This record gives sequence, structure tokens and C-alpha cells, in this order.
Amino acid sequence: MRKLEEFFQFLDKDKISQSESDLYRHSRDESFHPWIEPDFVYFPENTEDVIKVLKLACEYEVPVTPFGAGSGLEGQAIPINKGVSLNFDRLNKVVEFSPEDLMITVEPGITRLQLNEYVNKHGLFFPIDPGADATIGGMVATNASGTTAVRYGSMRDQVLDLEVVLANGSVLHTGSKAKKSSSGYHLNGIFTGSEGTLGVITKITLKLHGIPEQTVAARCTFETPLECAEAAQAVLMSGIQVMRMEFVDAESIHQVNKYGNYTFPEAHSLFFEFAGTTNAVEEEAHVVEELMRDFGSKHWERASNSKERAELWKARHELAYAYRHMKGKASTGADVCVPISKLPELVDLGRTLLEDSGLMGGVFGHVGDGNFHTIVMFDPTDEGEKEKAEFTNSQLALKAIEVGGTCTGEHGVGLGKMKYQLTEHGDAVQYMKSIKSLFDPKGIMNPGKMFY
Amino acid sequence: MRKLEEFFQFLDKDKISQSESDLYRHSRDESFHPWIEPDFVYFPENTEDVIKVLKLACEYEVPVTPFGAGSGLEGQAIPINKGVSLNFDRLNKVVEFSPEDLMITVEPGITRLQLNEYVNKHGLFFPIDPGADATIGGMVATNASGTTAVRYGSMRDQVLDLEVVLANGSVLHTGSKAKKSSSGYHLNGIFTGSEGTLGVITKITLKLHGIPEQTVAARCTFETPLECAEAAQAVLMSGIQVMRMEFVDAESIHQVNKYGNYTFPEAHSLFFEFAGTTNAVEEEAHVVEELMRDFGSKHWERASNSKERAELWKARHELAYAYRHMKGKASTGADVCVPISKLPELVDLGRTLLEDSGLMGGVFGHVGDGNFHTIVMFDPTDEGEKEKAEFTNSQLALKAIEVGGTCTGEHGVGLGKMKYQLTEHGDAVQYMKSIKSLFDPKGIMNPGKMFY
Repeated sequence: MRKLEEFFQFLDKDKISQSESDLYRHSRDESFHPWIEPDFVYFPENTEDVIKVLKLACEYEVPVTPFGAGSGLEGQAIPINKGVSLNFDRLNKVVEFSPEDLMITVEPGITRLQLNEYVNKHGLFFPIDPGADATIGGMVATNASGTTAVRYGSMRDQVLDLEVVLANGSVLHTGSKAKKSSSGYHLNGIFTGSEGTLGVITKITLKLHGIPEQTVAARCTFETPLECAEAAQAVLMSGIQVMRMEFVDAESIHQVNKYGNYTFPEAHSLFFEFAGTTNAVEEEAHVVEELMRDFGSKHWERASNSKERAELWKARHELAYAYRHMKGKASTGADVCVPISKLPELVDLGRTLLEDSGLMGGVFGHVGDGNFHTIVMFDPTDEGEKEKAEFTNSQLALKAIEVGGTCTGEHGVGLGKMKYQLTEHGDAVQYMKSIKSLFDPKGIMNPGKMFY
Repeated sequence: MRKLEEFFQFLDKDKISQSESDLYRHSRDESFHPWIEPDFVYFPENTEDVIKVLKLACEYEVPVTPFGAGSGLEGQAIPINKGVSLNFDRLNKVVEFSPEDLMITVEPGITRLQLNEYVNKHGLFFPIDPGADATIGGMVATNASGTTAVRYGSMRDQVLDLEVVLANGSVLHTGSKAKKSSSGYHLNGIFTGSEGTLGVITKITLKLHGIPEQTVAARCTFETPLECAEAAQAVLMSGIQVMRMEFVDAESIHQVNKYGNYTFPEAHSLFFEFAGTTNAVEEEAHVVEELMRDFGSKHWERASNSKERAELWKARHELAYAYRHMKGKASTGADVCVPISKLPELVDLGRTLLEDSGLMGGVFGHVGDGNFHTIVMFDPTDEGEKEKAEFTNSQLALKAIEVGGTCTGEHGVGLGKMKYQLTEHGDAVQYMKSIKSLFDPKGIMNPGKMFY
């Protein structure tokens, strides 16, 4: 391909790969979306490398698709129009760490666990926990959240500043190192969650938080998902700032038991984590225990040392694996987020759709945010099964939007949620597309994602 | 004026005012910026009224400037190009209240205290507290925050959805009723803090929070502002989620004592509020007391009933009045926000600049966020004094930007901080201006604010 050959001559050879294994690795993420290989993979080592490759990509009109850890669930990193896959393995350093400011600046390729390893020894931690050991760049790009969002929000709530390289090679800062600001339009918020469609993130300044003195975990069960949702709501209204509050349905616990030979009580469950000063968390755990009892809970169990805590939360932690270990199966994972009063209705819809489909799957999620996942296992070679799985997905997304919620609470739009953008955002979509054109007039940044 | 007469014939007469008192009221806010009267004031009663007036304003190219409670501090509500002042006194209803979702949708004219009165009886509260009883619309428009930002962030962290009417009369929703979302670009963030320059906010959906069971207030003193900042930093690193943590310098306490005949200890002080379950806050207060003692604090005092708490915080609460009661004086209030490690340096600069100016004033603010105010009193008829006050303001803003912070943590840009936008945001300013053109191509929305 003449164009690519010309392109290559301007780049350092040792930063380019067209090896079979690299092209394969960059063709996919953890979703069920079809795999497509890029023309080549580029490994930038600094901001200048990113500027260089974007300027060239702009000149040659070659698509650029950023790739983090490949742990995305909506195909954001799949280079559907081929071109360059930008890999951040070499752009993964800590740029500046200010423990006294509870702040760190990192490059996008550092992973969540690497970041925490770096800051934990200073008594600090970065709380956002999407489960996977995603790169921080990828987490910013999808506005990731997870089990701690009930206390710390999403990535957008933790990002203070981004250095971004735009398609034309110019470099912007979207915020500052101030913990809050009322200056200018909030570009941080636009770039966080933009999935690589507006520019390439090359530096990220994040808030850090003090590690609480004590953590207590607990778990209890209820008869119905409705009871779980109502009990969770009562916790929110109490003003107690739980660290984590998760819902797992009975079927999913059953799946975990089967997968791991466990004997966890196979009932609809709430999992809690409380964190703070020692007596404070003891009291919070006690208050919530009483509250849960008032709501008819059973099997209240609690643990404070870290080994026991891990044991207690095992059914929650091993959930994704318990489903994904099923050989020859792919999965879709609806990711709706709704006002918490609508949660029982939506969870019920998820279960009904699952049963109607005749497919395996479970319902679980971040009940404190109204965000939950309905995982559906299907045989990817069986069109009928695939269609049923996608039907479950779409029914949940449309219902969520109908009740005032969103089609995606944390996984992002990527390829899978494009079809709901107009239904969810209405006329705002045309302005989103205009914003895209403003930052990327030639449309080289992750084309074919987010909007049609 | 022919144009206005034509304009008027399409509007309901009882929604228009050109009375002297109305024109006067809408000519100013609480800042020192020069007063300018609008051509007329319009009182919309619903979204349709706003659509109608904006379509007309667009057609006749008449500037539109939204006006909330007039409590702004940077002149955002001053109609410097005249035209229509939009007053939200009649657009102040609760649209939908869902206590079970910890969520409320209101019109922009409702004030912070009205909102809290409405939701408090359901055990809920809206935490953002900028001091003034501002309208919620105004608070969204400036991304207000205040004493509780250390725990709840700014308005931007509390806004779930906005209904906005654009200059061309079209209506958009910027978010949804989901507590978090990774769908589409984050228009909530752009419109929050846009100071009426992108469109008119007609409905606001906010997060609410459970009222904590117990609140404890405390106060202590230190020898120097540096010690205050270091002690505050230690609290943040402890992982304790304080409700409020405020710094007030000795000079300001002196001013309060003089103003109100009090005998508060005239030393650099930290004010605390802890909120949560009863024993939890007792413990938190105790841990922080010990911590403060380790950092050399004196005069630790605490209170838990609401009357005693009010008494304990009196020196903080009466601060603004203590300065503003000074007859014939105007004030500038620098509003920088910096990484907390830079706070001592900046606070010191504030004090030095004040002393060099020979003018009265004080330094105080939200130490947990690195946001503080340097209030400078001056005689507005004395050009020399005015120049000195503005010099203090500009030196602080430029220094804050130099150390990685922002020229405005919560007051917004308005007229006073326009001159720092390019220094703070660099090339990003041109993209901000393009975003402005996207939503308001004719430039009728609050012209002459935010950017040159």
C-alpha cells in the first residue's frame, strides 16, 4: 500500500509493528464485536511521537484508534476502518507525583494497579475500580467507574487536567491542577468519555485520596431483587457514605458456586464495604446491619481483616470469570443506569428477558448508582442465540432511556451503543457531532465510533 | 427605539418591565463592576416564554443576559451591551421531586434555601453552599461551590441534567436522570459554568443527599497561615471526609470582632464541620483534634448542638458582612484555587500584597480545596485605591496560574477574569470560543463575558 509506505518513512522503525501477534492483539477488546486488524501498530514514547503520528495521519487521512489494555467492553479500541492502532505500553510513566497535593500526573499507558502500587506506600490510593486492570488512559476515554462510584463517582469526577493532542497535532490542556475551577468551558468533561474520537490523551492529572484507616466488608441476602433495591435505597438516604454497595442476583451466585465449588447462600444478595476511622466504620456497619434487618435481610455476615473481606466478597469478585469461563460462549453485557426507584423494574425486566431467551446469564451491579449489568452468554456461531442476546441488550437499553436513564453507565458507547444515541440524546446529538468536527475536522480520530 | 418596539409587540405585556426600579435592580450584581441597565427586563413563566424571547432576540439581534438573584461577584448578570435581562423570579418551581431517587428537578429561579426548605423535611438536603442565597440557575451558570466543596465538589458534580434553550430557540437536554453515564459527550459539564453564554437553563435536575444523623463543629488556631495549610493537608490525607474545613486569617477575625463586638481568639484559624452517624463524627472530631494538636494548634473548641455550632462558626459566617458593612467602600475578592501545597505561598502573597497596598482586607477560604479569597476594601471614587485593589487581584490570579492553579475557583469569569483566560487556558481558548459559536452563532447570549 503506497500511502502507508510513504507514511512509514517518517516514523522511527522501532516504534512500528506489523507483526502478526501485534496486529491480532490490536484487532479486538473483551467485547463480542467483530475483530478487525489495524494496518500497523505505533508505540509512541512521548507526546512528540503522538504529535508526529497525528500530523502524518491527518495529512494522509489515515484513521487513528487508541488502544489501552484492550479490556474495553464496547469495541472502542477496534480499528474498524483499519489505519494506525496507537499503543500506550511505552507511554506509561509517572510524570509528577505530589502526595502533599493528593495529586498525580501520569501517562495514559499506566494501569490502575500500577498506579495504586505507586501511590499506596504514601498512604494514598486512586479509588476508581472498574474490575479489569485497565490503563488510566482507557479509563478516562470511557469515563469508567465501577464498584466505588457510589462514593467517588466516575473518572470524570477524578480528572483535574488532561494534555491532549488534537488531530492537527496541536496540544491542549483541558483543565488545571486546581481541585475545582470556574474558569472557561469545562473541556475536561468533554474529553473524558470521548473514547479517542476528539484527540489523543497524553498526560492525565488525577485526584488521589487518603487510604481510610479501617475497612469492613459485609454481605446479606433478600428474597427478591426488589427488596435488594429498596434496602440499598434506604442506605443512601441514611447519609452513610458507603465505600461499595453491590447487588448480585441468585442465579449469578449459583453460577459462582458451580464454577468455584463454593457454598455461598444462593439468594439475591447485597455486598457492602465501609471505610473510614475504626469506630466510625464499626458503627456504620452496625447501623446498616440494623437497617437491612428492618428490610428483612438474612445471612448478614461481616469481616474486617483483609483475608476475610476477600473471602466474603469472593462471590462478587469471581462473577465475571464464572460466566466467562464457559467454553465457546461469548457474552453481551447490558450496562444501563437508571434512577434507583426504577431499578427493581429494570432488574426484573433483565431477569425476564434472560428467562425468555433461554440463554444463561445473570444480573448484578452497582446498586447505589442504579447501574447494573445483565450478562447474556451465547454461542457466537449461532445466529439465533446471538440475536436473542442482542435483543435482551436492546430491550434493556431502550427501557432505561424511557425511564429517564442511560444506555451505558460505565462501559461507553463504542460500537454497541451508537444505535441508542439519538433516542437518548435527541437533538443534542447534532451538537455533539459538531463538537467532534471542531476538534477533528477530517474525522481521523477513532472513526465509526459513538455516532453514525 | 424602533427595534425594541417591534420586539415588544410579540411579548406579553405583563412579562415585560421597564420600570426604573427593575432596570436599576438588573443593572448590577454584588461585584464592583460598573452598573449598566438593560433596555428591558423579561420575566418568563415557562420554557415556551424563553423560547419565544430567544427566537425574537435572535431575529432582532438583541443581547440576552440571564439574571438570577444578583448575588454574583464577577458581573456575569450585568447587561453590558444592554438588551434584555432575563429574570427568573417566576420560573422558580419544583418540577419533579423523587425523594426515593435522591433527585429533584427544579426551575432556575428557585433559591438554594427555598430548595433546602422543600427537601429537608424528607431527610434530604442539597449540599452546595456558596454563602449567598443564590438561585440554583445562577449557581449552575457559575459552577458555584463554597464551604462544602471539600466533600461534595462543585455544582458540576451535582448536576445530572439540564434543559437548555439555545439562541435559536431549540431545546436540548444535556444529560439524563441516571446518576452516572458514559453516553455521548458530556454537555452537562460544558453548560455548567457557561455563565449564560451558551444558552438559557430552564430546568435543572440535581442529586440530593441524605441529611447526616449528627453534625459536630470545631475550631482551632495556629501561629501562621502556613501551619493552617499544613494541618489542613494532614486532615485530607487521613481519609476523613470532613463536611467543611475553612481557613480564616487573624486580620479577618479581628475585623469580625470589631464589627460584632466579639472576643474570638484573634489568630489564624481553621473551622471544621464533621457529619455522619453519631459515634463516627465523635471519633472523627477526636482524631482531627489529636492531629491538630500534633501540628501545634491552640484553642480547640467543639460543639454539637446546632445553637453552639452556629456560635462557634460565627466568625466565619459573619466575615463577608464584617468587611462589606464598611460604608463607602467597594471590594474586590480574588478567588484563586491552587494545589494545596502552594496554598501557604499564595496566602502569604495575599497578605503581603494587602499590606503593601495599605488597604483593609483579609484572607480566608476553602482550605480543603486550595481555594481562598483575598478581599480588598477600597474607595470606588479613588482611582489610586481602585488600582491598588485590582493589582492585588491580578498578582494573585497570575501567580495562581503560574503554580498550576486557576484564576477562579468558584466565582466564575464574568467581566473580572476575562483577561486571564488566555494565560490560563492557552490554545484551548480558541476551541472554547468555537464551542460558543456552535451554540450561539449570532453571539446574542450574554455577550462580552468570559472571552474577548
